[in-house]
Amino acid sequence: MDERLKKQLAFSLEIDKEKNIFRQTHLSGHGRNENDAEHAWHMAIMAYLLREYANEEVDIARVMLMCLIHDIVEIEAGDTYAYDTEGKKSQKAREDAAKEKLYSLLPEDQKQELTALFDEFEEYQTAEAKFAHAMDNLQPLLLNHSNNGGDWKEHQVSARQVYGRQTKTKLGSEKLFEVTDKIIQEHIRRGNLQE
Amino acid sequence: MDERLKKQLAFSLEIDKEKNIFRQTHLSGHGRNENDAEHAWHMAIMAYLLREYANEEVDIARVMLMCLIHDIVEIEAGDTYAYDTEGKKSQKAREDAAKEKLYSLLPEDQKQELTALFDEFEEYQTAEAKFAHAMDNLQPLLLNHSNNGGDWKEHQVSARQVYGRQTKTKLGSEKLFEVTDKIIQEHIRRGNLQE
Repeated sequence: MDERLKKQLAFSLEIDKEKNIFRQTHLSGHGRNENDAEHAWHMAIMAYLLREYANEEVDIARVMLMCLIHDIVEIEAGDTYAYDTEGKKSQKAREDAAKEKLYSLLPEDQKQELTALFDEFEEYQTAEAKFAHAMDNLQPLLLNHSNNGGDWKEHQVSARQVYGRQTKTKLGSEKLFEVTDKIIQEHIRRGNLQE
Repeated sequence: MDERLKKQLAFSLEIDKEKNIFRQTHLSGHGRNENDAEHAWHMAIMAYLLREYANEEVDIARVMLMCLIHDIVEIEAGDTYAYDTEGKKSQKAREDAAKEKLYSLLPEDQKQELTALFDEFEEYQTAEAKFAHAMDNLQPLLLNHSNNGGDWKEHQVSARQVYGRQTKTKLGSEKLFEVTDKIIQEHIRRGNLQE
């Protein structure tokens, strides 16, 4: 087998490990914790279905690919819960090291391409990155909403913390932020989120 | 919330259930059984990385979306193991009913669009469908290969059965079938596949 294909298959096998990285979000129906691969799959389909609500026109193939790969670094760096203040401090350094290690399995051109796409997501500047982040916020919100806010209750998260993260959905989609806002308000009323 | 968005979010929540549909394939490192959402995520990334080996030029966004949605029907119809002769007989009827039920949650235009994409995959005629099927074959082969053919041994699968399915990879990618062939031959030599 030639060297290029061998590298592509080695990377393909390595990312299988993303299925073992579990998040704080639980599946609908009060299910088990969700893993990163499932989360990425779900985000990519939602991005496609909801693309008409993006504030700016997006290249949907780029958004989908961004969704699919955005958590690969967590194979090495682990998942950092959205409201884990301590973990957030070291997150960038851990993820940068992981990015270099994992994407180096690929042929150089694909390493550069996927690293650039991951960086674009992280930098939160392009229309595609903003919309992909909107999915990264909305997908777990939808699951948590279906479970009566169980993930928030478990971690005693405050409305201020949730808004701190979810308000950024506005950058990708004003329309989807309207829905987000309604959901958060409902959970404040139900007492699932501390005011 | 308007009716259209409500439907899109209802479908988005419903497909969460795909994470509970488990396959016969095991994760690398002799891990647990893989579920359909993880399998679809893995296939979509592999399709992107390996698209240069498609026999014909493919619209990679279509291939990726096809990979992502191809198993949604299994939420209702269940997973049918590739070498389950009895299950295969009723598979089409079960999946057609599931398709109608699940995609009807979406607004009509998106129902039509995703149903057509699923049918295109099943009909195995377009370049995109052939390459997506090549991924549907190669992804579990890669995992099973990394686990010393454990899934084949568990089900006492024969080389003839494996070739029956995997030979079709050729329709999507001659190059990737060469790799497939080498892997199968290696497992025959190791005694993991019955001749």
